[in-house]
Amino acid sequence: MAEAEMLRREEQHVVVLGGGFAGLAAARILGTRGRRRVRVTIVDRHNHHLFQPLLYQVATAALAAPDIAAPIRKLVRSYANTTVLLAEVTRIDRVAHKVLLDDGHGSPTELTYDHLVVATGMQSSYFGHPEWEAHAPGLKTLGEALEIRNRILRAFEAAENEPDVARRRELTTFVVVGAGPTGVELAGAIAEIAGRTLARDFRRFDPTTARVILLEGGDRVLPSFTPDLSEQALASMKRLGVEVRLGARVTGVEADVVRVGAEEIRTRTVLWAAGLSASPLTKDLGVETDRAGRVKIERDLTIPGDSHVYVVGDLLSLDQDGKPLPGVAQVAMQSGRLAAENILRTIDGEPRASFRYVDKGSMATIGRAKAVADVNGRRFAGFFAWLLWLFIHVLFLVDFRNRLAVLFEWAWAYLTWQRSSRVILEAPEGRSPPRDGRER
Amino acid sequence: MAEAEMLRREEQHVVVLGGGFAGLAAARILGTRGRRRVRVTIVDRHNHHLFQPLLYQVATAALAAPDIAAPIRKLVRSYANTTVLLAEVTRIDRVAHKVLLDDGHGSPTELTYDHLVVATGMQSSYFGHPEWEAHAPGLKTLGEALEIRNRILRAFEAAENEPDVARRRELTTFVVVGAGPTGVELAGAIAEIAGRTLARDFRRFDPTTARVILLEGGDRVLPSFTPDLSEQALASMKRLGVEVRLGARVTGVEADVVRVGAEEIRTRTVLWAAGLSASPLTKDLGVETDRAGRVKIERDLTIPGDSHVYVVGDLLSLDQDGKPLPGVAQVAMQSGRLAAENILRTIDGEPRASFRYVDKGSMATIGRAKAVADVNGRRFAGFFAWLLWLFIHVLFLVDFRNRLAVLFEWAWAYLTWQRSSRVILEAPEGRSPPRDGRER
Repeated sequence: MAEAEMLRREEQHVVVLGGGFAGLAAARILGTRGRRRVRVTIVDRHNHHLFQPLLYQVATAALAAPDIAAPIRKLVRSYANTTVLLAEVTRIDRVAHKVLLDDGHGSPTELTYDHLVVATGMQSSYFGHPEWEAHAPGLKTLGEALEIRNRILRAFEAAENEPDVARRRELTTFVVVGAGPTGVELAGAIAEIAGRTLARDFRRFDPTTARVILLEGGDRVLPSFTPDLSEQALASMKRLGVEVRLGARVTGVEADVVRVGAEEIRTRTVLWAAGLSASPLTKDLGVETDRAGRVKIERDLTIPGDSHVYVVGDLLSLDQDGKPLPGVAQVAMQSGRLAAENILRTIDGEPRASFRYVDKGSMATIGRAKAVADVNGRRFAGFFAWLLWLFIHVLFLVDFRNRLAVLFEWAWAYLTWQRSSRVILEAPEGRSPPRDGRER
Repeated sequence: MAEAEMLRREEQHVVVLGGGFAGLAAARILGTRGRRRVRVTIVDRHNHHLFQPLLYQVATAALAAPDIAAPIRKLVRSYANTTVLLAEVTRIDRVAHKVLLDDGHGSPTELTYDHLVVATGMQSSYFGHPEWEAHAPGLKTLGEALEIRNRILRAFEAAENEPDVARRRELTTFVVVGAGPTGVELAGAIAEIAGRTLARDFRRFDPTTARVILLEGGDRVLPSFTPDLSEQALASMKRLGVEVRLGARVTGVEADVVRVGAEEIRTRTVLWAAGLSASPLTKDLGVETDRAGRVKIERDLTIPGDSHVYVVGDLLSLDQDGKPLPGVAQVAMQSGRLAAENILRTIDGEPRASFRYVDKGSMATIGRAKAVADVNGRRFAGFFAWLLWLFIHVLFLVDFRNRLAVLFEWAWAYLTWQRSSRVILEAPEGRSPPRDGRER
């Protein structure tokens, strides 16, 4: 290591925080075109890049966790100038050009950067009620997806054990908060699980009588899509048996109840797809943020007053044509790429380019073989939109093995209505429970 | 439920504890030939049947957890007389013919049985040193497999972060205790991970220099096989780079050291494949057990003095031709089947049959494309034995989807040397860690 680093002393050091769509896009430019000009360190607290658009399928037992995750280390292995560190970033020190890390194994370490790319993304946010989180997991990590899968499957299992009708009703009532793409996809998948996958698997109650309630504070589902697609999505949800409530603002979440104003919905399973806030690391940057904590950046993706620090992906707050850019994978990939290009331009003494997002369209699935899509102003709904969704998602899966495996699982699920990952996993570090103890 | 149970009042109630190979084999007989004569309740603390012979592949990142697990509920869904409950069995009361359950959701429940099949299997045992367990996980459940996978992958990740050479050496030293099939398979797979899968993925150290040490207290590896197969397995292990130490009795396991007599092996990753003891539930039966807690049973698989209680699978202690029966899947399946048949014979007023194990052979893999097999006294080693191993294991995978998925993963792994499940999973219930906290 020492010799290698001496040889590269003249190279500048780029530190990329986060191995999501944005960080990985930056790393790819830096690892290929940046070779011999920069050395790169990617820091992530997970060992894997996650294909987040399919995370809801892990949460609803259609895919296994490894199907949508690829080791970051493996994805960048061919870039000789790139090192990957599994660690939590604890602080950014812009004055000293340093990032502090904790790898959970020993003393904290630090990295000195010439250029920093912050791509740590968003986390679930509970409208100022962090106490709701314990009862209503969000869906941002594989751990959360497995937690949601466990909760859904366990609720049905507990219903089979439950003699009391009212409590069984609570156990088979599922509430999803927030009708953006994640909420719509989750609610649709749970309705399918109850109505088809598990239909013949229980003896003491009928899973097809389960209720799936989708709560949305706004006046339509999929508010980021056009109103006509929202209408079609709403109709599809209703056909699946999902109870959609618009204008429903959640005022309380407890272990067995969700409050919407004065109304109480008795339930044991609440899933949160309503709000996001920026990774708290952005506060260390000391620059202006929007309400969700996103960083207001310059058009070249650097932060105001510091051309060594870039903010990319969901974390950026930037208007284009009078509208804020959305937190979608395409913005993440395009901004990650431009940040890397601007770093190389800076090193070469060239002017940095401005970011211009090219919208390639957006889409969401609604249960089996149904989707809505908006591609360059052309809007589709139904089976064709779903085929398009499937094609594009498989195409963008990062790792080739995963692509084939996922296609295989989908084909199988489509033919059989079954879900291949109906497995309740204990905590990985779970020891055998004490004999008279609870399982978890 | 009430009507259904009234209609069946004349049917006898069979309770099966455990949905492993033995319990499932019993349930299949009772659900098909037992229809209209018995109603059946299967209790398991996991929602899935586990194909345990491939568990080490989940632990070594070759397979995803759902590849080798199928919901018990789905496997028996076509048996109209069969109910599945996800619950922990807390007590067996032979006098009252009752089993007490805790489903982790409410008040304890109980089941009254006419016939009881105890098939709860074995758990890891630490030679009277339960304090070793925290540092040396065993491999009996999916949760333990994911824990082992995490430990192996995290050790390499931590080594990349570690500047101190001695500590990096500890992090890249892997100790497997016990050279039965599980220990041999684990050690071989770790050697492959270090030598091939990860070979080009790190920048600050060379994964191919990792040490894999296999400790065995006896005088040969695979002691349940013939001595010539043990020799061949030992030679294969050495070629893979595994350091095998025979006659090595572990006297201490701590967070960063394994003691073998006076010698200290510095390591951060110890895996336990050395001892098993019976599910503690067997103590409630109040009958004689062997040293490992296995229940000494009659030849008809009932316990002495109580013809309503059967003990099957790994839990049974029974001699055949002067030798104790081994704890293998074939004994489990055959004993489960016979217990179910004997229950039906009892109901029909016929005499119960005696158990006679038919040994269909045994096999173990040693790394890539190598195995040893002993089939009806014919012994194979090498590539052919591995093909046989592959064929038989795919054939016996319970669920059809899994069979194809596993074949697919193996073909891919064979061609690419890659492992498709190199994903460190947080605890399913893991919340986002606090910003300045450790990841787990």
